[in-house]
Amino acid sequence: MNLAPMIDHTILAADAGPDDVQRVVEEALTHGFASVCVNGNYVPQVAAALRDAPAKACGVVGFPLGVMKNTVKAIEASSIIKDGADEIDFVAHLPTILSRDTEALKQQFLEITRTARAVSPGVVIKVIIESAALMKDVAESEAEARIACACQAATESGCDFVKTSTGFHPAGGASVEAVRLMKKHAPDLQVKASGGIRTYDDAERMIDAGATRLGCSASVAIVQQQAGPAAGY
Amino acid sequence: MNLAPMIDHTILAADAGPDDVQRVVEEALTHGFASVCVNGNYVPQVAAALRDAPAKACGVVGFPLGVMKNTVKAIEASSIIKDGADEIDFVAHLPTILSRDTEALKQQFLEITRTARAVSPGVVIKVIIESAALMKDVAESEAEARIACACQAATESGCDFVKTSTGFHPAGGASVEAVRLMKKHAPDLQVKASGGIRTYDDAERMIDAGATRLGCSASVAIVQQQAGPAAGY
Repeated sequence: MNLAPMIDHTILAADAGPDDVQRVVEEALTHGFASVCVNGNYVPQVAAALRDAPAKACGVVGFPLGVMKNTVKAIEASSIIKDGADEIDFVAHLPTILSRDTEALKQQFLEITRTARAVSPGVVIKVIIESAALMKDVAESEAEARIACACQAATESGCDFVKTSTGFHPAGGASVEAVRLMKKHAPDLQVKASGGIRTYDDAERMIDAGATRLGCSASVAIVQQQAGPAAGY
Repeated sequence: MNLAPMIDHTILAADAGPDDVQRVVEEALTHGFASVCVNGNYVPQVAAALRDAPAKACGVVGFPLGVMKNTVKAIEASSIIKDGADEIDFVAHLPTILSRDTEALKQQFLEITRTARAVSPGVVIKVIIESAALMKDVAESEAEARIACACQAATESGCDFVKTSTGFHPAGGASVEAVRLMKKHAPDLQVKASGGIRTYDDAERMIDAGATRLGCSASVAIVQQQAGPAAGY
């Protein structure tokens, strides 16, 4: 399976500089990744570099904690879309999911989706629900109820994707079980798996569970592993 | 030494909910901490709870990566000050420090200090320079030059404090050496040490090195350790 068109090639570390971002852009062009995913500060650089390319510019919002003011997230979303982001990955307010207040969560998401689509109707919006934190140290039924709450709010607020993880939370990144539950409870949305996906096997497991997009930093290694067997190694 | 008036009692985890924040507020009132330091979403709650109290409301900005757009940081600062933040702790753009571009850094800081002081001239502004990341894997002279660059930009842009760490960077939190270098290169500013300060001894070492403010989550344990010996244990 050619995974490259499903991968958001990602560089989000606090110390990544413009040269690091440029390297990631070039790798995306070489390998045909879906997008380059960066912090807001780098969206202008990435959008300019990808202007005539099929790869999209993707920027994160409210990242990685998701506990800034919701209004500031909406402003950040609007601002990076104006800078050229084709896709935004915003972090949900985790305590609202943990308290399973679907209506409040939906209102938070709507403020972001409406603001974003007012700038660009076609922008692709992914909401990060930090699934590992939702599933940690609780019964399976509670974990599923939390994921269902987030998926319902995502669906009713017009998000395009639910995304598993920021990759920064100590509880961990994507899991097959999280992807499966997210696909079950948001059947009309796509699922992006991200956080800790480092090998072709990791990636394939996420896709088998229902993911149609992957967020990876090790994207080049992953597609090189897929190329290996096809070339007869 | 009574450390309580030097401590920003801090709760910044992504999963912290309103009840957790309320507990921290009550601890600050009980023990006489300098402030309660929270993510932007909780500034209204904290400002309301501390309205008639000596403790200040402190909110973080651009936290913890510091790589959102600088303009968005300025908007976030303005927004949480309007919500009642007496103090803001904003994260510097780390790659600009790493490239030692003092002038660019100063312009970034000025956008935030000017915006913040336009809302509230007396707001206390701390800039987080993620000192452990600046000092990691480089010669001492380079580490010092980076810290000097950040301290010069902080001084010339009118910050009140330089702060060692977010507490979220994998390179680590506060160190005695970082505090010493920051005090050396920003002699007219105060230094806030934060990240990994968990005991009274940790705290005392930071103060001996020049810190006048401490950011801690373990604040209650720290002041209870200080009370211990005085009570004859």
